[in-house]
Amino acid sequence: MNFEFPLQSLPTVMQGPRVERRRVLIGGSAFWGTMVEEGADAGRLRLDDGRLLDADAQTYLPPVNPSKIIAVHISYRSRSMETRNKPKPTETPTYFTKPPTSLNGHKGQILKPADCKYLNYEGEYAVVIGRTCRNVTPDEAWDHIEGFCPALDMGLQDFRDTDQGSMLRVKGADTLLPIGPGIVRGVDLFAQTLRTFVDGRVVQEAHIGEETIWGPHYVIADIARHITLMPGDVILMGTPCHSRSVDPGHVVACEITGIGRVEGTVVAIDAPRAAALGVGHAPTDSPEVRRVALGFDERVPEHFKANLRAAKGE
Amino acid sequence: MNFEFPLQSLPTVMQGPRVERRRVLIGGSAFWGTMVEEGADAGRLRLDDGRLLDADAQTYLPPVNPSKIIAVHISYRSRSMETRNKPKPTETPTYFTKPPTSLNGHKGQILKPADCKYLNYEGEYAVVIGRTCRNVTPDEAWDHIEGFCPALDMGLQDFRDTDQGSMLRVKGADTLLPIGPGIVRGVDLFAQTLRTFVDGRVVQEAHIGEETIWGPHYVIADIARHITLMPGDVILMGTPCHSRSVDPGHVVACEITGIGRVEGTVVAIDAPRAAALGVGHAPTDSPEVRRVALGFDERVPEHFKANLRAAKGE
Amino acid sequence: MNFEFPLQSLPTVMQGPRVERRRVLIGGSAFWGTMVEEGADAGRLRLDDGRLLDADAQTYLPPVNPSKIIAVHISYRSRSMETRNKPKPTETPTYFTKPPTSLNGHKGQILKPADCKYLNYEGEYAVVIGRTCRNVTPDEAWDHIEGFCPALDMGLQDFRDTDQGSMLRVKGADTLLPIGPGIVRGVDLFAQTLRTFVDGRVVQEAHIGEETIWGPHYVIADIARHITLMPGDVILMGTPCHSRSVDPGHVVACEITGIGRVEGTVVAIDAPRAAALGVGHAPTDSPEVRRVALGFDERVPEHFKANLRAAKGE
Amino acid sequence: MNFEFPLQSLPTVMQGPRVERRRVLIGGSAFWGTMVEEGADAGRLRLDDGRLLDADAQTYLPPVNPSKIIAVHISYRSRSMETRNKPKPTETPTYFTKPPTSLNGHKGQILKPADCKYLNYEGEYAVVIGRTCRNVTPDEAWDHIEGFCPALDMGLQDFRDTDQGSMLRVKGADTLLPIGPGIVRGVDLFAQTLRTFVDGRVVQEAHIGEETIWGPHYVIADIARHITLMPGDVILMGTPCHSRSVDPGHVVACEITGIGRVEGTVVAIDAPRAAALGVGHAPTDSPEVRRVALGFDERVPEHFKANLRAAKGE
Repeated sequence: MNFEFPLQSLPTVMQGPRVERRRVLIGGSAFWGTMVEEGADAGRLRLDDGRLLDADAQTYLPPVNPSKIIAVHISYRSRSMETRNKPKPTETPTYFTKPPTSLNGHKGQILKPADCKYLNYEGEYAVVIGRTCRNVTPDEAWDHIEGFCPALDMGLQDFRDTDQGSMLRVKGADTLLPIGPGIVRGVDLFAQTLRTFVDGRVVQEAHIGEETIWGPHYVIADIARHITLMPGDVILMGTPCHSRSVDPGHVVACEITGIGRVEGTVVAIDAPRAAALGVGHAPTDSPEVRRVALGFDERVPEHFKANLRAAKGE
Repeated sequence: MNFEFPLQSLPTVMQGPRVERRRVLIGGSAFWGTMVEEGADAGRLRLDDGRLLDADAQTYLPPVNPSKIIAVHISYRSRSMETRNKPKPTETPTYFTKPPTSLNGHKGQILKPADCKYLNYEGEYAVVIGRTCRNVTPDEAWDHIEGFCPALDMGLQDFRDTDQGSMLRVKGADTLLPIGPGIVRGVDLFAQTLRTFVDGRVVQEAHIGEETIWGPHYVIADIARHITLMPGDVILMGTPCHSRSVDPGHVVACEITGIGRVEGTVVAIDAPRAAALGVGHAPTDSPEVRRVALGFDERVPEHFKANLRAAKGE
Repeated sequence: MNFEFPLQSLPTVMQGPRVERRRVLIGGSAFWGTMVEEGADAGRLRLDDGRLLDADAQTYLPPVNPSKIIAVHISYRSRSMETRNKPKPTETPTYFTKPPTSLNGHKGQILKPADCKYLNYEGEYAVVIGRTCRNVTPDEAWDHIEGFCPALDMGLQDFRDTDQGSMLRVKGADTLLPIGPGIVRGVDLFAQTLRTFVDGRVVQEAHIGEETIWGPHYVIADIARHITLMPGDVILMGTPCHSRSVDPGHVVACEITGIGRVEGTVVAIDAPRAAALGVGHAPTDSPEVRRVALGFDERVPEHFKANLRAAKGE
Repeated sequence: MNFEFPLQSLPTVMQGPRVERRRVLIGGSAFWGTMVEEGADAGRLRLDDGRLLDADAQTYLPPVNPSKIIAVHISYRSRSMETRNKPKPTETPTYFTKPPTSLNGHKGQILKPADCKYLNYEGEYAVVIGRTCRNVTPDEAWDHIEGFCPALDMGLQDFRDTDQGSMLRVKGADTLLPIGPGIVRGVDLFAQTLRTFVDGRVVQEAHIGEETIWGPHYVIADIARHITLMPGDVILMGTPCHSRSVDPGHVVACEITGIGRVEGTVVAIDAPRAAALGVGHAPTDSPEVRRVALGFDERVPEHFKANLRAAKGE
């Protein structure tokens, strides 16, 4: 992590006890609850109204309702090397956005339109803002964090060649942000390891404290120089190396030790009707698209590639 | 309906073709769609993204996201007679509110706390506001309506004796407003019949055009004299006679010809923890509570009572 | 305050240092800021973006954006005595609601329609919910409070005779809830005194700790037995004795030591157009309306009455 | 406009009579109203509650509350030529986003931080979505439009070199989107002329129908191929040639015949505190930044340049 803004001590949001808040839909009504951490019921979900549920059998809503979602392009050394960006300490993070309509819950369907080939996974951790935040220092930023969630920043790389870098259509389509199942406090984020799975096989892995270039305190202080962050806003903190494309039927998951695991299933849908009329930039299969969708270079650990090939039956 | 404000012609919101918009949760993501009205796929749900679904197999969200929910106390002649309020043409509707946290979707769970005995059904139609509305006449009010939904205005009558008439706890508890599954336009509301069912047996029935005292145009113009109605706001239009209490396991439904059918299942939960500490007005079983919960008088058609007794296994 | 749930120690929300957050509109853009508490700039407003402003010269927005607003009918001994409700320790608070459209900011206009005579003030303190809250004990409730605001729960008593006690039209009309200018933490609420002013003259006064029957912890635990409170939700905690009606031109203020002062000016508007058509319950000037609007009995301290007569030029 | 999707007839949203809805803040309360179009009161603002106001003397809120704001990079031939993008009929629009926190009202302050040099204006028209929209054709898209607003898509070009094209910090800072004062229906958008002014001098001008490459129907159909547009969402439709930087004290306005005029004043604020700590990409004064901020080439009409020099006192 950026050595210029080290932690003086563990920030409050990372100090225990662990608390995980989840939101489920039962029938057509949303309920908040807290995961039971200890005792005979550990691992079950205690709704605020008293009901004790099997956490695995629930329908999860995104545990956030953000007014904006901001994502870091690159914040892991391995991803930076893979893409041949070699940030030095003087360099700075860059950002893009995803619209709120891209939100998806744990066990959601991730839609892949019939005219697109390259739907890439990116396992990430998300930071949820707890208090209005503008013009803060990195030290102060910690007090504005509500907690952390696992997230999948999915992208339709077929639109890589358009939007001049904003990635609105790459990253902004409906369902491309599975997040949750909970918001977690009381866990030392920097001691955790993030892993992405395709059909149960590890395809990305990074130790957050060792491989992250910028911590959430730095990123919040950076963005909040000019943009007010509101309670509920979400910041996606970037992905380690080996973002690759997946296909309908694949189950993609991001698991972060101590924080949780979010998964989604890729589902095929028809191409949009306007596409048949020639409206808008068509999905393309250019060398640049393939370069990003299929992988940048050979520095990626071999077992990630082997695992993905196995998941794809290649 | 109130003879002073008759319709000059069928308002736009009631003119065909019929359009029903529904919102479903798939995985953890919400999707809007339109019911297919004609052809081989009639009765299926076409999502906006093109997917065609079995409408019966979906998880429905409330099709509304209101900033406020206002309910008419009494707007049916049969309910008015039953409660011995005999409004004359010069009398006027009265209102209470339900909080947004009471919203529930089609096929939701309607929660009955262990310390409450009397959870009453009230089948109703809901009016959804489409455009900001303040200081309008009844004629103008029609243009501010988005559409109509079936709804169940459930009530915990055990709290009848408190809140000095606001019914916050009678009508305001979580899950007490199943609504949907769709918002419907293009149907002549006043030609429809509303029925409430318990376990499939009819327990309320009214022809909306013939038995309603005040139409939505009158009610909107009345409320909007002093209160701005916002897009998405919901007005519940009252229930006909024979609101009675139901028990855990009962399936309650409100079906309106041409508009749709919403149902919910009564589910038992524990009494709240604060109740054990003696906090707040305890649920009571007073004569007034029983009078409302169990029924007012003998003018109710006998078959409704017989059907309810059958549903209750009495 | 209710002796059954005394404080074990000062809750976090009341422990210093004092923090007051305000939201202002500059041009057409909303900005959050914090009041400067100490030093040469004490009493000025520091926006989050760094600007230092004259706090008195700003346009204030309500510092809250609630999904629901719940109000206690009576929670002061003096008001209880005045209205001849003499609650004993076994009795419990009752509630009504105000819609979000009733929100108004500090220095707002409080609208009095031409066909209404009795617009009553009620100085109150508001509790703002900070974290989702359901099924908590009074002890736990404190952690769900964001802070406190001064508020004026204005009421059009001309509609006292309708709505069967819900007071939707008495308390729910647009502009009837001036609140702010800030949300305050770090002040011992129970050591404060609340005063209401009309044109600068004291017309209500109460020591919150000594005269309040139920504290916010009790009220939150009571409501949250069945209703989920969401972040931003507002609870109005009732008014002391001597709620009386005011007229266009009057400046009404509620000031709470340590917390702040909110004021509004009564402004006349035309009667609604639908009123001329005979729609809805007409404002009435019945004995019951006058009894509430003009005052209940003679137990009110004489100087409050004299001050109000002076403000009214009587 | 794109010849492949011509209008068959004037869409409903452009058919008269003209209706303009505005939202003002009076005291601390927001009110909607409609501009009076005819008669002695033409040009005044009639609030929904009946008050008739001097439209020029009001404090305007943005007339929109979007869940997302999407902007077209280039949709005018003059801008396209200026930037040497020469789109042919087969080419397609590209997009970026602005966060809701960038919203500003008519007569707002547009903030320029002390460490930034280049705050550029871009006069645009905005499209406001009226109904949920996904997977529509250009023909169908018209029915999903609520109306049109003047807007200023301001940008801090000092951040041109960062964010890899997303322009989050160029276009996303607080206050950089003055919009309003009204949402307008019933005006033939394609017959109107857009002009941008600095201190009253014309610095941009374009006939919308003749110089726009893509109409809103095309853009909506394009975006809604993969992204659901929600009621209230805003699409900014691009700017004609001669976007240039302005300085504190300048009054910038965008006026569209038949639609209205929005203006804002540039105001200096301090550099953010985190900037002094070296957090984040520093504003830069690179050749690329200057190229965009100060102008691309010499094809811009000379009088625009002369007017801007005059406004800047050069």
